[in-house]
Amino acid sequence: MDKTLIFGHKSPDTDSICSALVYADLKKELGVNAHPARLGEVNKETQFALDYFGVEVPPLIKKVDDDVKNVILVDHNEFQQSVDNIQDVRISEVIDHHRVSNFETKEPLYFRSEPVGCTATILNKMHKESGVIVSKKNAGLLLSAIISDSLLLKSPTCTQVDIDAAHELAEIAGVDLETYGLEMLKAGADLSDKSAHDLITMDAKEFTMGDAKVQIAQVNAVDTNQIYASQAAIEKEMEQFISDKNLDLFLFVATDILNNDSDALALGSAKDNVEKAFDVTLDDNNRALLKGVVSRKKQIVTKLTETFLSKTFTK
Amino acid sequence: MDKTLIFGHKSPDTDSICSALVYADLKKELGVNAHPARLGEVNKETQFALDYFGVEVPPLIKKVDDDVKNVILVDHNEFQQSVDNIQDVRISEVIDHHRVSNFETKEPLYFRSEPVGCTATILNKMHKESGVIVSKKNAGLLLSAIISDSLLLKSPTCTQVDIDAAHELAEIAGVDLETYGLEMLKAGADLSDKSAHDLITMDAKEFTMGDAKVQIAQVNAVDTNQIYASQAAIEKEMEQFISDKNLDLFLFVATDILNNDSDALALGSAKDNVEKAFDVTLDDNNRALLKGVVSRKKQIVTKLTETFLSKTFTK
Repeated sequence: MDKTLIFGHKSPDTDSICSALVYADLKKELGVNAHPARLGEVNKETQFALDYFGVEVPPLIKKVDDDVKNVILVDHNEFQQSVDNIQDVRISEVIDHHRVSNFETKEPLYFRSEPVGCTATILNKMHKESGVIVSKKNAGLLLSAIISDSLLLKSPTCTQVDIDAAHELAEIAGVDLETYGLEMLKAGADLSDKSAHDLITMDAKEFTMGDAKVQIAQVNAVDTNQIYASQAAIEKEMEQFISDKNLDLFLFVATDILNNDSDALALGSAKDNVEKAFDVTLDDNNRALLKGVVSRKKQIVTKLTETFLSKTFTK
Repeated sequence: MDKTLIFGHKSPDTDSICSALVYADLKKELGVNAHPARLGEVNKETQFALDYFGVEVPPLIKKVDDDVKNVILVDHNEFQQSVDNIQDVRISEVIDHHRVSNFETKEPLYFRSEPVGCTATILNKMHKESGVIVSKKNAGLLLSAIISDSLLLKSPTCTQVDIDAAHELAEIAGVDLETYGLEMLKAGADLSDKSAHDLITMDAKEFTMGDAKVQIAQVNAVDTNQIYASQAAIEKEMEQFISDKNLDLFLFVATDILNNDSDALALGSAKDNVEKAFDVTLDDNNRALLKGVVSRKKQIVTKLTETFLSKTFTK
């Protein structure tokens, strides 16, 4: 039977891994020969969730092989965040909750993006629509994705639909939402063994904003000062990326999961856009505190894109 | 209350007009201050449907005014097919059944595209999902859109979901599907009062294929010879478009609604791509018969895009 591959974005987070796993199971139930995959290393937070619910890591792929008939993208649509040979494959579906950009197909497809906090929330809905019961382990995976994307339901991206889904899934998974959630986030925020290179690549996404190439990396931490103890090494790695990928801006965002602020470090020729976007001044260390900012998608990408675009057009 | 404007593509067809009208009604039922609009003249087929079910033509707009908070695109997503100031407005939703291309937002949105034959089929489903009963007149409009896009359920774009929706809607609308459908298509195929300019603009869409700019216009006819009686005038108008819009290819497709073939006329520097895409030879009049071709989307755009792309990449 024709093979369908399902994967999330590069530098996968918990939503990208768990949504690929769960959607592959749902598709299999519906008679599709679907297989989950991942485009990068699994982070500690995700590993905690997989271990907790006894699920294997999906296979790592570098490119989509020729025996794959269709691919399904979850948790992303922008081609630069996807597999390297995305231009050569047939995309049959997209299930996502991000802005739509740099995405194109030759043929009609099933494209479902909803302005909710997490892909897993949409998948929870899709189980109901197709009359398939979410298993205990899959409920645990979907719940983990929602907790991750919403920072335990605290991010401004989190909607009532996400909150309702999280409570529903916690019950099926048989865990206490708060206790499990904080334990999972803390597992992810343990950065003690991470190199500077790890920190800036473990959850990094590239964006096109106007004519500019922008990379935004984010880490969750319990103590952001601990991260910046190695700021010199982090900057060196960032500078390397800027030159290798020809970036106009590299923004590194360390988010404090306990008080929900972010300590950001900006490098690149367009770093003044960070000051304009957030009305802050970068200090001598190129850093600024972004009060109450926890969501890359809703609080960072939107504002930065506006700032970059306002240079080109006047609205 | 914040105003939401709903419209289909330029050179609107029956799906673009009827889906805007019906979705505005559905949104109003759901508490949204939604208004339908259109980006161009209503064709005879659509007018027949509106008159039959006693519905007013939606207002014509040239641009989205400043008092509009959100726009919803139906039956299209490619910006070049949309309103001229589409880059300046907030798109909150897209309901569509075409390929995704040249579409971009700053923020997450509700984007729903399904590989079915008609936007109206998705709207029929959305009524069920939200528990709103389709009124008799709206059933008539949705049915008309499906008949139009599927050439009375004969196009290869037509899926079982469209067929089921059409039968269901015909019953609510109180019409006989075949009788009403043929009457509506014939009303649209009456081209006796059309100028050459009308013929090439009444259902025209622009596409980007690789690096090329391609315009494809389609008319339905009972007798395609009657259309080409004025071929010289049609070519003159097409040449004008090619030079004004800097097109690489202008393909004019006259589709015979009774025997389901198309008689195509190709002009522009890239017209040899038509020969390659369909394995035909353009005659001295730049025309070729495309046997069994009735669907611009599924049978023309896909093949032509592949031909244009195969020049640039090798797969």
